[in-house]
Amino acid sequence: MPTKVERLLINFKTLEEFKKFKAYGIQELSMLEDLEHNMIENNSESPFYGIYFGDELVARMSLYRVDKKYDYYFEPPQDYLQLWKLEVLENYRDKGFGKQLVDFAKSHNLPIKTNARINSHEFWEKQGFQPATYEMERDFGENPYIWMPEGVKEKDNS
Amino acid sequence: MPTKVERLLINFKTLEEFKKFKAYGIQELSMLEDLEHNMIENNSESPFYGIYFGDELVARMSLYRVDKKYDYYFEPPQDYLQLWKLEVLENYRDKGFGKQLVDFAKSHNLPIKTNARINSHEFWEKQGFQPATYEMERDFGENPYIWMPEGVKEKDNS
Repeated sequence: MPTKVERLLINFKTLEEFKKFKAYGIQELSMLEDLEHNMIENNSESPFYGIYFGDELVARMSLYRVDKKYDYYFEPPQDYLQLWKLEVLENYRDKGFGKQLVDFAKSHNLPIKTNARINSHEFWEKQGFQPATYEMERDFGENPYIWMPEGVKEKDNS
Repeated sequence: MPTKVERLLINFKTLEEFKKFKAYGIQELSMLEDLEHNMIENNSESPFYGIYFGDELVARMSLYRVDKKYDYYFEPPQDYLQLWKLEVLENYRDKGFGKQLVDFAKSHNLPIKTNARINSHEFWEKQGFQPATYEMERDFGENPYIWMPEGVKEKDNS
């Protein structure tokens, strides 16, 4: 069954699906609260993209375009994509869904920055990402991994 | 055996101890590389604090004082402590080492901000922390938890 990446809308169904993911946290709770209190409309656009397998959301990630004036990672400074909460439900791993989401992100042809979770380095390196040079005052507890389209370099802060 | 929180120095022994912690990542690798290439001195101060039980480092955290000009969390704006990589080795949990580290951080009497890991919310709430109001462009994939000494409030960004 071919699958596609789609932008997820904020509604009670999506938020119920989100509960299956391990990285369910304050972001999701805040979206739920906003929806319950009519602070956002039903079916508002979300920063999440996902893959449905049949009726079930089996993989998701968040993507946000950061303005070049906040770019501390790339040379020349430019808009880049912040990618977070990439996660594939346990029963659907090793089927290429993670790669499909990352390829979707790459298709924007902008540099990408993510925070690699514990034990995920091999995955990110397989997707062509590399560890960014760690800088405490920028990265704190993160493991910043970056991907760059042609013509872009990591910013040299040394 | 009474234990105390001490500031950890960067040397090969400390960096070897760090390998036992799950959140070993680019930060630690970068410290190791800097030491190997004499870019930092042996026994330089690190942002890590830890607890030794006998000869073994069994708990650690990082603390960094963020200048008030970068304070997007508290009211009035002020210097605050960023806390990350709080971790107690598995065999030493439920003995109060985590609380001992957090109490050390609190003793500075500055607000504290951390990023709560999956399934750690109960711990942080027990330490008097509360979830910060989630703001995507500030927090991305984080679960920001904050603690405030008397007289400090969460910044209202609404």
